[in-house]
Amino acid sequence: MTDISSAMRLAADIRAGHTTAVTAVTAVIADIEARDTRINSVTRIFGPPAVAEAEKIDRRIAAGEDPGPLAGVPFGVKDLFDVVDEVTTAGSVVLRESRPATHDATVVARLRAAGAIPVASLNMDEFAYGFATDNAHHGITRNPHDLARLAGGSSGGSAAAVAAGLLPFTLGSDTNGSIRVPASLCGVWGLKPTFGTVPRDGAYPFAASLDVVGPFAGTLEDLRLVYETMYGAAMTDLPSVGTLRVGRLGGWFANNVSEPLARAIDAVAAHLGGAETVQLPEVARARAASFLITAAEGGNLHLPRLRRHAQQYDPATRDRLMAGALLPATTVIQAHRFRSWFRAQIHAAFSNVDVLIAPATVGEAPRIDQPTIVVDGQNVSARANLGLYTQPLSLAGVPILSTPLAGTGGLPLGLQLVAAPGREAALFAVAAELERAGLAGRAPLPAKGR
Amino acid sequence: MTDISSAMRLAADIRAGHTTAVTAVTAVIADIEARDTRINSVTRIFGPPAVAEAEKIDRRIAAGEDPGPLAGVPFGVKDLFDVVDEVTTAGSVVLRESRPATHDATVVARLRAAGAIPVASLNMDEFAYGFATDNAHHGITRNPHDLARLAGGSSGGSAAAVAAGLLPFTLGSDTNGSIRVPASLCGVWGLKPTFGTVPRDGAYPFAASLDVVGPFAGTLEDLRLVYETMYGAAMTDLPSVGTLRVGRLGGWFANNVSEPLARAIDAVAAHLGGAETVQLPEVARARAASFLITAAEGGNLHLPRLRRHAQQYDPATRDRLMAGALLPATTVIQAHRFRSWFRAQIHAAFSNVDVLIAPATVGEAPRIDQPTIVVDGQNVSARANLGLYTQPLSLAGVPILSTPLAGTGGLPLGLQLVAAPGREAALFAVAAELERAGLAGRAPLPAKGR
Repeated sequence: MTDISSAMRLAADIRAGHTTAVTAVTAVIADIEARDTRINSVTRIFGPPAVAEAEKIDRRIAAGEDPGPLAGVPFGVKDLFDVVDEVTTAGSVVLRESRPATHDATVVARLRAAGAIPVASLNMDEFAYGFATDNAHHGITRNPHDLARLAGGSSGGSAAAVAAGLLPFTLGSDTNGSIRVPASLCGVWGLKPTFGTVPRDGAYPFAASLDVVGPFAGTLEDLRLVYETMYGAAMTDLPSVGTLRVGRLGGWFANNVSEPLARAIDAVAAHLGGAETVQLPEVARARAASFLITAAEGGNLHLPRLRRHAQQYDPATRDRLMAGALLPATTVIQAHRFRSWFRAQIHAAFSNVDVLIAPATVGEAPRIDQPTIVVDGQNVSARANLGLYTQPLSLAGVPILSTPLAGTGGLPLGLQLVAAPGREAALFAVAAELERAGLAGRAPLPAKGR
Repeated sequence: MTDISSAMRLAADIRAGHTTAVTAVTAVIADIEARDTRINSVTRIFGPPAVAEAEKIDRRIAAGEDPGPLAGVPFGVKDLFDVVDEVTTAGSVVLRESRPATHDATVVARLRAAGAIPVASLNMDEFAYGFATDNAHHGITRNPHDLARLAGGSSGGSAAAVAAGLLPFTLGSDTNGSIRVPASLCGVWGLKPTFGTVPRDGAYPFAASLDVVGPFAGTLEDLRLVYETMYGAAMTDLPSVGTLRVGRLGGWFANNVSEPLARAIDAVAAHLGGAETVQLPEVARARAASFLITAAEGGNLHLPRLRRHAQQYDPATRDRLMAGALLPATTVIQAHRFRSWFRAQIHAAFSNVDVLIAPATVGEAPRIDQPTIVVDGQNVSARANLGLYTQPLSLAGVPILSTPLAGTGGLPLGLQLVAAPGREAALFAVAAELERAGLAGRAPLPAKGR
């Protein structure tokens, strides 16, 4: 059995001839076929082209060439990234009859150029509109840590496949929290890069002024390498963690947090030297603005299709998109006006701190048979509210590293590490320190899930 | 009688002690009081503070100080610029009871720091929504070249005051053409700088994603000095006109042009070496997008006030703002999506040319008693359609120099000189060449208007 727990080590083994790309790709595909039936993270396996590409990589290595730092590493993409010759469905039946992509999405092309091989598309909420990965056509993706629980969404397949050890890394997208929510519920690393810095072309859009694409990985160093490959350049050296001022978000971000998660955040804050509390103003409005902008931009994007193919949409997605298309302009303009102001507040906060800590979700993954979470003492829909802590920050376009907490005992819990635009290096520095201290790291899979 | 036909010369005379700032300011105020009753370009005279400031300038000169390149030069502002201790009404009664401004608008402060003295506020369409300067509360501003005709708008008072020789320069704002339309109908120079480059704070907004503030002047060198002062830095040397590639906009911008204006544009193009025709795609859509974005952003801005004070608005303004507030978000988002595309088309056009020529309006100023223009063979409302050639270009945020044509015989006619963002210097270079060749220049006032 090929060990895929580290993409970097796997690539090193392949480059050194200890194993081959074909071995890795065929092993991963066989493993998906054997184990994903329960989890349902994968929607399609790109078998023949993936094996053909692996053979090419192996031939290049045999010929003394270096196919790149991710040589022969299989990966998966949320089914909204174009992969050449494959149909991009964005989790819908509406797009099922589309023509196959003629080009890879830019980030897929960059990973391929570094030697990585796309082997599968991954489940998602239809058109990325949801936090549950409960897809009307492909079914629900289950949390590998407890199959009775949600994986989170909308990039739930991407998070679950990494969490289950089916793939070493995957790609997702985050509009309101679609990388951070499933990464935290599944106990893996995820990155939402700075808005506008990683190319989105060839990724099916949702809300153009919010959409960001990013990676999931089982190790922090894999996350970094994949992010740098997607971005197109390596980060300069990470800052020394001792030089970074760390704060923790209070108020909105301290309310409703589950007991074990609150304790874990305290431990992280204590380890990082106390982490003074930072209050952001008007967080509830920020979340509302993010909701409104998402609905309106999504509604605008889908309106022509909705006019023709409304019955082919998942009813939950359809109704929200229609409602979004019917919003009055003044509401959305007001949301954008608020957004400019809120962004300025967040930028101001970063004049005093380098990295902010916040919970990613209120606690562990909700049960599938009771998909609710508790907010302000009320049971509310998980699908609509899992983004409680992620949506307000989306509005500002800041980079956020979703960090799996270690040693918390129960089901996975996650942290958001937040920095000013373009300061991903500070996030990786803090995350590395937390990992070194045993406070962060991929959640170990229970024996029955392996 | 103080000669105010050149702000630079007037400042030089004041700095040299040939005349004084007090003489200039009191003469200008007396002239406005004597002659503006017919034109109605001025809504308020800032008498005492202007004279006090002039005395200060004179004292500084007497003390051997240099108060700046615009020392003692009186100017006027469209009544949407904050002037310290004055109420900014934006041409409305709604704001008449507002508190006086506690600070100058940044551009007013910069001009004041260069020695210029604000002496009057100028008439405008209410809240800058119109092309006629037909104000329900202050009355209509008449064209100094023919009092039976419109001055254009919404900065009609600013253009007419310069055209009438009441003020050497004035400030206006341009969202859809509100500098370019009145500048061309009144035969003076006007500049709409690159969107986002000249500070707008302290200028009452209209449509935030389109609003630009800029100057009117009687001479090109005054226009340049005032623009540079507003911008906060002098342009580097103007490019040699021989090195600039000049094109003329065809299609939409060649249709509906009056006979004399078409001839004048031919003469300009011929003088500039032929000026190949450039076609922009989807100009009608660009104009529609500009209309929609303006209505929606204006509607959003005014909605809280409309809810409380609808009866105090000019009915024509009110109904358009209300309609704008009721637009569906999807329509406005679509307009913004189109806008990104259209902007890219314009930027692409500027890879082949440096300056584009287009008409500013279809022809001479319409009559007040028949406020229509002919478009596609139909008589249509001047107030709604004078922006035919200005609105589509607003969408792209490019700098545009409104150039009065010389030697065309009848009433004033104007040209738009258009460049890529930040390339104001190319516009001034071409305008200077047209002025040198006798093809451009402030329209001479008929004897009866003097």
